[in-house]
Amino acid sequence: MPTITPVILCGGKGERIWPLSRQSHPKQFIELIGEGSLFQQAATRLRDVAAPIVITGNEYRFIVRQQLQEVGVGNANVIIEPDGRNTAPAILAAACHLASKSPQSVMVVMPSDHYIPDAEAFEAIVQKAVSNLAKGQIACFGIAPKWPETGYGYIKLREGNSFITPVETFTEKPDFARAKSFLTDGSYLWNSGIFMMRPVELLELAAEMQSDMLNAVQRAVSSSTRDLDFLRLNPVEWAKVEAQSFDYSFMEKAKGIGCMAFQGEWSDLGDWQALAREKEADSSGNILHGNAHQIDSANSLFWAEKDEMVLTGIGLNNIMAIATGDAVLVADRGRAQEVKAMVAKLKVKGASQALSNERENRPWGWYETIARGKNFHVKILHVDPGGLLSLQRHKYRSEHWVVVSGVATVVLEEEKLQLHANENVYIHAGQKHRLCNDTDYDLKIIEVQTGSYFGEDDIERFSDHYSRT
Amino acid sequence: MPTITPVILCGGKGERIWPLSRQSHPKQFIELIGEGSLFQQAATRLRDVAAPIVITGNEYRFIVRQQLQEVGVGNANVIIEPDGRNTAPAILAAACHLASKSPQSVMVVMPSDHYIPDAEAFEAIVQKAVSNLAKGQIACFGIAPKWPETGYGYIKLREGNSFITPVETFTEKPDFARAKSFLTDGSYLWNSGIFMMRPVELLELAAEMQSDMLNAVQRAVSSSTRDLDFLRLNPVEWAKVEAQSFDYSFMEKAKGIGCMAFQGEWSDLGDWQALAREKEADSSGNILHGNAHQIDSANSLFWAEKDEMVLTGIGLNNIMAIATGDAVLVADRGRAQEVKAMVAKLKVKGASQALSNERENRPWGWYETIARGKNFHVKILHVDPGGLLSLQRHKYRSEHWVVVSGVATVVLEEEKLQLHANENVYIHAGQKHRLCNDTDYDLKIIEVQTGSYFGEDDIERFSDHYSRT
Repeated sequence: MPTITPVILCGGKGERIWPLSRQSHPKQFIELIGEGSLFQQAATRLRDVAAPIVITGNEYRFIVRQQLQEVGVGNANVIIEPDGRNTAPAILAAACHLASKSPQSVMVVMPSDHYIPDAEAFEAIVQKAVSNLAKGQIACFGIAPKWPETGYGYIKLREGNSFITPVETFTEKPDFARAKSFLTDGSYLWNSGIFMMRPVELLELAAEMQSDMLNAVQRAVSSSTRDLDFLRLNPVEWAKVEAQSFDYSFMEKAKGIGCMAFQGEWSDLGDWQALAREKEADSSGNILHGNAHQIDSANSLFWAEKDEMVLTGIGLNNIMAIATGDAVLVADRGRAQEVKAMVAKLKVKGASQALSNERENRPWGWYETIARGKNFHVKILHVDPGGLLSLQRHKYRSEHWVVVSGVATVVLEEEKLQLHANENVYIHAGQKHRLCNDTDYDLKIIEVQTGSYFGEDDIERFSDHYSRT
Repeated sequence: MPTITPVILCGGKGERIWPLSRQSHPKQFIELIGEGSLFQQAATRLRDVAAPIVITGNEYRFIVRQQLQEVGVGNANVIIEPDGRNTAPAILAAACHLASKSPQSVMVVMPSDHYIPDAEAFEAIVQKAVSNLAKGQIACFGIAPKWPETGYGYIKLREGNSFITPVETFTEKPDFARAKSFLTDGSYLWNSGIFMMRPVELLELAAEMQSDMLNAVQRAVSSSTRDLDFLRLNPVEWAKVEAQSFDYSFMEKAKGIGCMAFQGEWSDLGDWQALAREKEADSSGNILHGNAHQIDSANSLFWAEKDEMVLTGIGLNNIMAIATGDAVLVADRGRAQEVKAMVAKLKVKGASQALSNERENRPWGWYETIARGKNFHVKILHVDPGGLLSLQRHKYRSEHWVVVSGVATVVLEEEKLQLHANENVYIHAGQKHRLCNDTDYDLKIIEVQTGSYFGEDDIERFSDHYSRT
């Protein structure tokens, strides 16, 4: 049997699931449905088969590493794209990487943000497909359509009864009338975006069809560098790679593409409508998540993300309302696709909510700003066991730290202190300092910053455990 | 000319304007529209005429005092109702109080939460009505109806052309068909709930029509006590008073009631629909307040109360969405009356948002809880100039105070400290302490509480400037 290598595409921003999903912490890293984040579900879907390759953006490298650790996938190869160039270059980079290491392996490429609850059924079809994969063949996974969805691509199969059926055409998001005709026709499947191929053969195909792209990707891979345990593609070379989707560059043009119909449940969770479809509704068609309450509504989605924020609805029909700690979205459910346009609008307005969350993830844990005033900021810092902030200094602000749980080890100029719960330390502007958690337990600190400027750029880093200096 | 005394009814909870209005800080104290809070607008509406009498609940006494101070009304008489008994007893209590002090005065009774932008026009009609007020007459202010409102009471006038026209009937909230017929009839006015009468004559009328109520009220007034500069009705006697509305007890039954038509703009701001009507809409009929953004919506209200919270809408029609820091309401605009039912539902669920705000008002200023954890709470304390917290002690929590602006005077056991911005003090559980602001500037403190219990009942007060011990 050839070996199988899952290749997980983990660079998406999930903007249609805003305000839950933000560029700084997108959809695939959130526990939206099922156990663990969608990325964790993807990373463990074929966990008994082989260590995955994960291709992700620079800003996500520490979340990826932490989430992999949480589910015990310690042996993944994480490739950092210096910036997003759509799916084709990312997949080629993984193929280059894999072709040199494990040329006989079959790569199973899958997005990190899909929902496939039956992992066993998925592994079974993967195993069967591997045994049936012809030389040079790309085999994609199709899903029997359940409604006339206009947000998906469709695959028309040729007649035949082989396990991997030849594909006749790909059709990108059709209009409603066409989607309906595809549904009744019976020879169409939804394109799940998941496919498999041997990396060496993909590179041969790319040399034929997309030689410029392949050459540029190969240069970026061969001049990549190690950064901690990440493989960082060469940013100068990578910038020369043309951004294109794999569907457009290969699937819609290549010959000899086959397709297997996956019978298990699948969703791309592409927007709030898709997510709502996976949640159980009450007898009036309402879905209530979290601290949400309604009176006399129907077919509506109420999603309250934080316990401290109550979400209420009265007399609504076919409305979706999503509330986080810093943003609320209310929309007609038929307009779920337009959430992306709202995010774009907020970006133009300079709203921080378009990009980032209240909670900012860092390799050592996270922080949340809980109050802001003209001359003060207050933050909660959560430092993971072993977490180590950089040795740093601020020009324009002083900091008061009060430990509320755990034990802090604090370096302050030449001194080293240990602070237990209920103890505090004052760090004057200009003093070099460092915070770390040397224990096996979480550390929580309330930080009161006072001063005249609080931007993240007033951090002078002298030494950083995570190579961020 | 007889003197005029405004009597301001300030005990309402404004539940239909939830989540902006909460029982702990209701509608009349909020700056909803116009300059200052609605109560401040009411208190200054006849400010050149005389000092007002304000009747309010015990929990509102300090807000009333502070808001009066802010607009320079220092000479008001504030009567505290130990609990709410609807409008009739409150008005009789004011009449009892006034009859003994200023028997020749005319009382102008008005709710504290209405909107009357043209104060001059209002004063003019009051002055004219005083000159025309017959002996024993109750004269109410009617408003020419502008639409078939089903939420108001209607007054039918008799034929006649005197300035104060005799009233034929009162009709409480009619159904839509009747409201429409009233509108076309032309002899109906909306009942504004504002009226005038001589207090001695009101007491005579009450002795005739509501002698039990009057007797009980008189006992509560005659055994009332001074509490700082408030007049506190006797709670035991007051508890025996039957709760009834003035409309029901007097207006609908008394003879010789007259009515003047007020031509100026008026709204009771009774619910979100009424409030929305006073705000300017864009060409699609949308009203956007604060940090709110919409795409392709119509006839919708988007009210974002906090800058830190962005409110967004897509493809909505006739929807209202209101977002505060801890609650979101989304409703069909036609269902604005049902907001009260949602508040009732939240009370049953034990949701704190049903009753109180993130910001808790205190006689010395306010505080806001900005973070809560299992073993810590973080608060912002804002102490007004001259503000003085009680001398107190906690059993179960320690407190770290960091001054972020202003100067704090801190009593800690036998010590007295002065803390400037960026300085801190630690108060151990069990230590007596007191915080005050001896300066003419605001004082802001971040308080980090650590411990095992954080309830307001873990405050042992030894001495309190505001008689709360």
